[in-house]
Amino acid sequence: MSVPPPELPARSSTRLDSYVDRYAARTKGMTASEIRALFSVASRPEVVSLAGGMPNISGLPLDVVGGAISDLVADHGATAMQYGSGQGDPVLREQICDVMRLEGIEAHPDDVVVTVGSQQAVDLVTRIFCDPGDVVICEAPSYVGALGVFRAYECDVVHVEMDADGMVPEALRQAIAHVQAAGRTIKFVYTIPNFHNPAGVTLSAERRTEILQICREADVLVLEDNPYGLLGFEGEPIRAMRADEAEGVIYLGSFSKTFAPGFRVGWALAPHAVREKLVLAQESATLCPPSFSQMAVSAYLRTHDWQGQVKQFREMYRDRRDAMIEALDDLMPATARWNVPAGGFYVWLTLPDGLDAKAMLPRAVTARVAYVPGTAFFADGFGAQSMRLSYCYPTPERIREGVRRLVGVIEDELELRQTFGTVADVVARGYEGPQSDLT
Amino acid sequence: MSVPPPELPARSSTRLDSYVDRYAARTKGMTASEIRALFSVASRPEVVSLAGGMPNISGLPLDVVGGAISDLVADHGATAMQYGSGQGDPVLREQICDVMRLEGIEAHPDDVVVTVGSQQAVDLVTRIFCDPGDVVICEAPSYVGALGVFRAYECDVVHVEMDADGMVPEALRQAIAHVQAAGRTIKFVYTIPNFHNPAGVTLSAERRTEILQICREADVLVLEDNPYGLLGFEGEPIRAMRADEAEGVIYLGSFSKTFAPGFRVGWALAPHAVREKLVLAQESATLCPPSFSQMAVSAYLRTHDWQGQVKQFREMYRDRRDAMIEALDDLMPATARWNVPAGGFYVWLTLPDGLDAKAMLPRAVTARVAYVPGTAFFADGFGAQSMRLSYCYPTPERIREGVRRLVGVIEDELELRQTFGTVADVVARGYEGPQSDLT
Repeated sequence: MSVPPPELPARSSTRLDSYVDRYAARTKGMTASEIRALFSVASRPEVVSLAGGMPNISGLPLDVVGGAISDLVADHGATAMQYGSGQGDPVLREQICDVMRLEGIEAHPDDVVVTVGSQQAVDLVTRIFCDPGDVVICEAPSYVGALGVFRAYECDVVHVEMDADGMVPEALRQAIAHVQAAGRTIKFVYTIPNFHNPAGVTLSAERRTEILQICREADVLVLEDNPYGLLGFEGEPIRAMRADEAEGVIYLGSFSKTFAPGFRVGWALAPHAVREKLVLAQESATLCPPSFSQMAVSAYLRTHDWQGQVKQFREMYRDRRDAMIEALDDLMPATARWNVPAGGFYVWLTLPDGLDAKAMLPRAVTARVAYVPGTAFFADGFGAQSMRLSYCYPTPERIREGVRRLVGVIEDELELRQTFGTVADVVARGYEGPQSDLT
Repeated sequence: MSVPPPELPARSSTRLDSYVDRYAARTKGMTASEIRALFSVASRPEVVSLAGGMPNISGLPLDVVGGAISDLVADHGATAMQYGSGQGDPVLREQICDVMRLEGIEAHPDDVVVTVGSQQAVDLVTRIFCDPGDVVICEAPSYVGALGVFRAYECDVVHVEMDADGMVPEALRQAIAHVQAAGRTIKFVYTIPNFHNPAGVTLSAERRTEILQICREADVLVLEDNPYGLLGFEGEPIRAMRADEAEGVIYLGSFSKTFAPGFRVGWALAPHAVREKLVLAQESATLCPPSFSQMAVSAYLRTHDWQGQVKQFREMYRDRRDAMIEALDDLMPATARWNVPAGGFYVWLTLPDGLDAKAMLPRAVTARVAYVPGTAFFADGFGAQSMRLSYCYPTPERIREGVRRLVGVIEDELELRQTFGTVADVVARGYEGPQSDLT
């Protein structure tokens, strides 16, 4: 090592960030995810976190997984630890087709692109389709991670109403007509049809047909994001939209919830020309997805009764859903409203009128319970009266305790409102004191 | 599973790609990498490929690696297979600081961002800094993977001359002055200072100081990409540029060549504010890099004499460099020119005047040898007379055979040129016959 050279003159700067003028325009849309900022607080052990969407993988047989991976290194280590194809491991892509067949999809491995989790699939699809100012249609609410991507690519998001059966077709029809009449370009409709994150609802079979029809007629692409499809508690999965429309649907899948998230293995199934561009985008982004992760997932699928494992997961998540719904039924004020999800991880709860989930969050954390305020799931500022409650990770006892604490916070808020009125009332009365904890 | 619904009317389209009008503007810059398109041909076993940059990992002790990973699953499987931090595993980030210290860098783990290979680090840095039309200054030639990223973000690349000691400071000074005088914005200078891919040269210590000074005075960021720094054949590594300039340098590192590529683990070391934006960009792109990969690399660093392994790699790569240089010295026509790299994977060879490496490639492949034409490493069409030769992967015997075949092709080309003249001569004479193999 050569000696350090003479000291260079110090950069003089009075700014905290000397690069503040230099960032790309797209970084204006890159703000800290509300969820991830919350996590550092919510992960303290004394807090019951109903905020995170971490799958509960404690049931995975570590000895079996360890053995499969150990054999992988011994028998195929040189390949598993080498660069691979930008499109992803060919054996895994065949296995992915087998997985998709469970939801009615017939596909060719050549139309599958492996991605670093399905989050990366959303990123790459948006990268190849969306210019700044393009419109993306989403459900109301929608998945925070996808909203973050659309924002990072400077898209405008238009939210479309959902009810207990998912996206409302007439609302979609109107939204498309409205946007197209304004001369704007809709690049795709982004939907999470099964056990929606965060709303918990599932798009009915009839609506899937209707929505595909609407999108065909409007010549709009559908981006179908399906991480939870195999995690239903009642009966068989509904046919994927992609099962009935190949050219007009890009389908995204993931092993994060059916196996484990730590390998970051997801995929996109796309029409051939789109697939080619996705591969180019992947090669630019990473050269290739991790070979080791892919071959580990592949080995797991091949050597373990992975569907039996998913069945165990389903039963575990159903118990947790039951614990949450029971606690809500027992304890939550009747003026709050919530759905009963038939699968997946989430309950979407709307507070009694006049309450604000975002404003309430600091008091909830003080009471040692965390949730995600509904505003995180809208691009347009809506959602303040709602929150996402996750039951996927804590034990049933902790879930019940978390609901108990949350109810305590809500009852305090209701009392406060009774005494002082809502924010609107307060403002209307001309109150001039500190309002920082009401905004 | 519900029965399939009635058949929807077929999409009528006379185009191969029904999305051809819909892609984002940035996809115009996304073209197939010349290298990766070549790989499918070059990887046929009868071809001696001097094209690829795959590290030779056959020396890795698979039993040791397998054991470390097996223990990882048994002892920390629930963490290794779970979502992790968007910034990357904190233990690994500390270990990365230890690795960087070997090249003189003192850094805090909090300023490290783990990425999916250093390719992703280039992608994320470009994403947060570059608007379409921004200028990026690169060496001439430069790394094809980085050029692809800059093109994907619609940057304009300005190449700056190199010689045997790397980038020429006066050429950099002039390029910066020229670009700034034209009112254009230079977002960073991208450099591969050690055992350059593809040129093989190393930026001297004196030039590192001079270039840092030039960039400070011009207020231009330096992006220092250093995958090969520990793979020198002679003595200690030269101090990294980042070792002498913290605010003005973003440093990229990788385990792909010092351990193995298949985990896709690299990193960026950046000033704090930049690091924050890189983490946001990562969370948008992938949520988080693969926990399993990171913990596998971490376990390897902790349980194995990884530096002793790198020493073995260096000796193996030196033997291969020697085989290539010997063969070139013995066989190659004296009118060709090439460097003798002091580390890394590559020799940069310039053909005798009048020859075109890109035009010659089909004939080389027919003769069962592959290389990468120099044009792949320029954004501006230059490089036709040069080629990159990789010695990292084949055995010394295969390297010698590859050079022998290549020399045969070159001698045939020289003869052809003698008989018919160069392309320029032919065109000048008004030749109107097929020229497809000369373009």
